[in-house]
Amino acid sequence: MQIILLSGGSGQRLWPLSNEVRSKQFLKIFSEAGGESMLQRVLNQIRRTCAESTVTIATAKKQVTLLKKYLGEDFDLATEPCRRNTFPAIALAAAYLNDVKGVDVNEPVIVCPVDPYVDDNFFAQFHTLAAQITDSAPLVLMGIEPTYPSEKYGYIIPCTKDNVSRVKMFKEKPNLADAQKFIDAGGLWNGGVFAFKLGYVLNKAQELLGTSSHDELTATYDALPNISFDYAVVEHEPNIAVVRYVGAWKDIGTWNTLTEVLESNSIGEVQTDKTCANLHVINNGDVPIICMGLKDAVVVAGTDGILVSDKVASSYIKPFVERLDKQVRFAEKSWGSFKIIDADKHSLTVKVTLNRGSRMRYHSHERRDEVWTLISGAGIVILNDRAKFVRAGDVIKIPAGCKHTVIADEPLKIIEVQLGEDITVEDKIIWQEAI
Amino acid sequence: MQIILLSGGSGQRLWPLSNEVRSKQFLKIFSEAGGESMLQRVLNQIRRTCAESTVTIATAKKQVTLLKKYLGEDFDLATEPCRRNTFPAIALAAAYLNDVKGVDVNEPVIVCPVDPYVDDNFFAQFHTLAAQITDSAPLVLMGIEPTYPSEKYGYIIPCTKDNVSRVKMFKEKPNLADAQKFIDAGGLWNGGVFAFKLGYVLNKAQELLGTSSHDELTATYDALPNISFDYAVVEHEPNIAVVRYVGAWKDIGTWNTLTEVLESNSIGEVQTDKTCANLHVINNGDVPIICMGLKDAVVVAGTDGILVSDKVASSYIKPFVERLDKQVRFAEKSWGSFKIIDADKHSLTVKVTLNRGSRMRYHSHERRDEVWTLISGAGIVILNDRAKFVRAGDVIKIPAGCKHTVIADEPLKIIEVQLGEDITVEDKIIWQEAI
Repeated sequence: MQIILLSGGSGQRLWPLSNEVRSKQFLKIFSEAGGESMLQRVLNQIRRTCAESTVTIATAKKQVTLLKKYLGEDFDLATEPCRRNTFPAIALAAAYLNDVKGVDVNEPVIVCPVDPYVDDNFFAQFHTLAAQITDSAPLVLMGIEPTYPSEKYGYIIPCTKDNVSRVKMFKEKPNLADAQKFIDAGGLWNGGVFAFKLGYVLNKAQELLGTSSHDELTATYDALPNISFDYAVVEHEPNIAVVRYVGAWKDIGTWNTLTEVLESNSIGEVQTDKTCANLHVINNGDVPIICMGLKDAVVVAGTDGILVSDKVASSYIKPFVERLDKQVRFAEKSWGSFKIIDADKHSLTVKVTLNRGSRMRYHSHERRDEVWTLISGAGIVILNDRAKFVRAGDVIKIPAGCKHTVIADEPLKIIEVQLGEDITVEDKIIWQEAI
Repeated sequence: MQIILLSGGSGQRLWPLSNEVRSKQFLKIFSEAGGESMLQRVLNQIRRTCAESTVTIATAKKQVTLLKKYLGEDFDLATEPCRRNTFPAIALAAAYLNDVKGVDVNEPVIVCPVDPYVDDNFFAQFHTLAAQITDSAPLVLMGIEPTYPSEKYGYIIPCTKDNVSRVKMFKEKPNLADAQKFIDAGGLWNGGVFAFKLGYVLNKAQELLGTSSHDELTATYDALPNISFDYAVVEHEPNIAVVRYVGAWKDIGTWNTLTEVLESNSIGEVQTDKTCANLHVINNGDVPIICMGLKDAVVVAGTDGILVSDKVASSYIKPFVERLDKQVRFAEKSWGSFKIIDADKHSLTVKVTLNRGSRMRYHSHERRDEVWTLISGAGIVILNDRAKFVRAGDVIKIPAGCKHTVIADEPLKIIEVQLGEDITVEDKIIWQEAI
């Protein structure tokens, strides 16, 4: 059995903690001590319940570095050259399994989003889904038994209330009255899990995208239609089965739902008064937060911004985040992290942290000088192919055009002042490593 | 007529924008474009209504630099060596007027807090207060005609409902029912304005503090009793008159009251959704704020922290602020400003801004090195008595023990990295200027 985890979301709904490169699946907020991320949690659950299956993570190119950092090289990655909707992403991952990994077209494939917050039993059901794939029902879905008449989810109406049933119809996010009717009729929430044999989706790719070749899909990816798997495939498939899942299920893609599964009501330096109720405060910033008299609210502060919202309203954040300047102020890299601590007209000051043993890529800039002040650790700086030992307190001047890198012998921290009239992330030339 | 403006408050109730050195009276939030501060507004009103009077500002030593920066040298300052309550502050200011300025003991004095938000007519009434001071009523107060039965203010119950009346009694912050009763009985809010002849308070100082000498009061200031003028004087004075003021009056000492007089519901980079109501957002920080679904709330973000509060609850912020680490992350100085942009174990990174023509004091540190990277402007750096021209892009290393200063020929910005195991504001030795 092959499992494809869809990890390509932009995570705008969890702004300001997630952004284009630091997507929601990496947020480590499931314990006070910065414990498990969403992705780690899901992978551990799959390991326990589907030990014999192979996991492939379908992800955007921008997130590959971070995925490798968190997960090592143990997982296959089907890398999307740019962000597209779920149909192109699933087609590409399927083509990757067939062309690159040599997976047989008859092998069952389960596609699952990376952000369900569920019991292990949810993943154990993957075996049932795989077993239900037949010629007369080539597509099998996971239906989640509803706990309340939610207006937020799509509904699957099965023909029977059995554990496995044919699907009668689908209903997109209904109003409250309709949601109750669907539940009375045995309706299930659509959990976004799809099961099929690999060949099924390769055929759909051939039919709808003109090819099922991994190379061709990759080469033309940015021109592929931006449509969802539901819209392109599910809605047109007359023969679908659904497997019923009874147990805890939350999509933790919004602050409203994510806060429901947090162990603590506050993370970071936070004070709240006694009149606060149903309040979650996540302080990932540098300054203290005081909250008073807030009810049913979420407050999140990070390097990119501050969100203060009624919990229900927080689900509708996306258009507000889209309006923001997209400068990434904090990012984790394979070698460590960087954080913009000051932006001025002709300068940018960045705190750079390197892990022990790591190095930046050897590079130069054309339109900016840099001044590095090492504030802790020790290592080797290479400037125009000449190496030099450095330690805390040392200052390194890097004029425009100078090739440079640093290798951290110990965890290393640098205050980097960039100086120039035109400071952009694009101004970077990568060179062959000198040593 | 002498006017003493009490400007010594710590402004904790307006955290995070005010702090020990950047007190509330300097907040420039009365127009979008960073316009008038509270203090400037009040001084302009006094200039219009009491042109012939002399204004003395009673203030804490910590705030003198900032006061001079904002007001120039046009005003007399009665400087309190440390923070004390209103009785010692008024006694010291009175002694200053008599001993230092030679003001006659028979001259009328009006004491007024610096934070009433009122019509010009409020200050015009000072003439009436001064005229009412007699031997049979040596103390005259300003009574504000209440607009609603507030539980936040003290009440003055006059003998009659005339414009000027004797005071029958005082009532501290009552409950709602009592407040209504007081209003029905002609009660007035106590606005904290006191009028008397200079000799009256000098006598009280002699009687209660053992001296009315400015030098002696200054020398023993930290040992003086920390009591209010109301408690020490007003409550024991049987013969008090009150002048009735009818017109707009707000004490803008809390976010709840201050937001009532702001022209705009948001300042700085802020987005709010359509479901927000009676919301004020003041973003004085570096990152955007998104607010959704908030009602009757105030959100304030600054360099020192973030406040998110129900408006009414925000009045009770003081104990929460007192619990915070008191490190000042941003401060305005006579020569410019500084802002801490990163704090690490053995380093502190500060953005320093110098005004054109200004200079730091010539100083050295014993237990830290500094690295300055000039990011804009030009000037002269002096290191151990040797001067050197510097401009944007230059890097200056200042080892521990090295005497240093900078003189800004143009507005100058520096990223200063402090390095050491024991970085404190106390580690500073001031030297005689070299040039």
